[in-house]
Amino acid sequence: MVEDEPMCTYYRQSANLISRRWTPLILKVLLLRPCHYSEIARMVGNISDRILSIRLKELEEQKIIQRTAFDDIPVRIEYTLTAKGEALNEVIDAIERWGTEWLPEPEEGATQQACPPQKIS
Amino acid sequence: MVEDEPMCTYYRQSANLISRRWTPLILKVLLLRPCHYSEIARMVGNISDRILSIRLKELEEQKIIQRTAFDDIPVRIEYTLTAKGEALNEVIDAIERWGTEWLPEPEEGATQQACPPQKIS
Repeated sequence: MVEDEPMCTYYRQSANLISRRWTPLILKVLLLRPCHYSEIARMVGNISDRILSIRLKELEEQKIIQRTAFDDIPVRIEYTLTAKGEALNEVIDAIERWGTEWLPEPEEGATQQACPPQKIS
Repeated sequence: MVEDEPMCTYYRQSANLISRRWTPLILKVLLLRPCHYSEIARMVGNISDRILSIRLKELEEQKIIQRTAFDDIPVRIEYTLTAKGEALNEVIDAIERWGTEWLPEPEEGATQQACPPQKIS
């Protein structure tokens, strides 16, 4: 029964890619503009160096981001979305639209901050 | 600098919700139709009972799914998306479109299965 098997391999793979902690936040930052490691770390906020390095490596292996080293002293490394990565803007936008539409509902104990958020340290 | 702080609280919250392992797969199953626990487990595939229970509980607490117990013997429990959960179809669709468009690219060592996938045990 096809209708009982809703998931193709492509969906599984892309869902697994998106559903890694911090990945949607890293992508959101890089959709803004190419960034250095420290800028990503600051804007994502609260992410450990170890995990951020792992996530960036994963995204680079998936050809979603490109890592470019510039010949400066000290060496300057920039992360940029590839076309494949830029195309994820539809997913990121959909997540944002859903959050804006559905999360402001009153929920017990939850406090909400307005958009844009307070500056991250 | 607003443009340097791309993430509002709502985006962070919805991204954190989506970026939990298995959650996009569970949502995809429930977008098909209301399901019993065992159906979700079968269609998601390879998920442990412990983790599936945790994920369903989380989604219920977020009011994304509703758990209904029917008065049968043995008791029958069905999981259904709420309106808030149904609205996540835009996110799920965007993930699927991206996967279909970008993942079929030849990548070293990766084998792809056509949609629809082989039946999950």
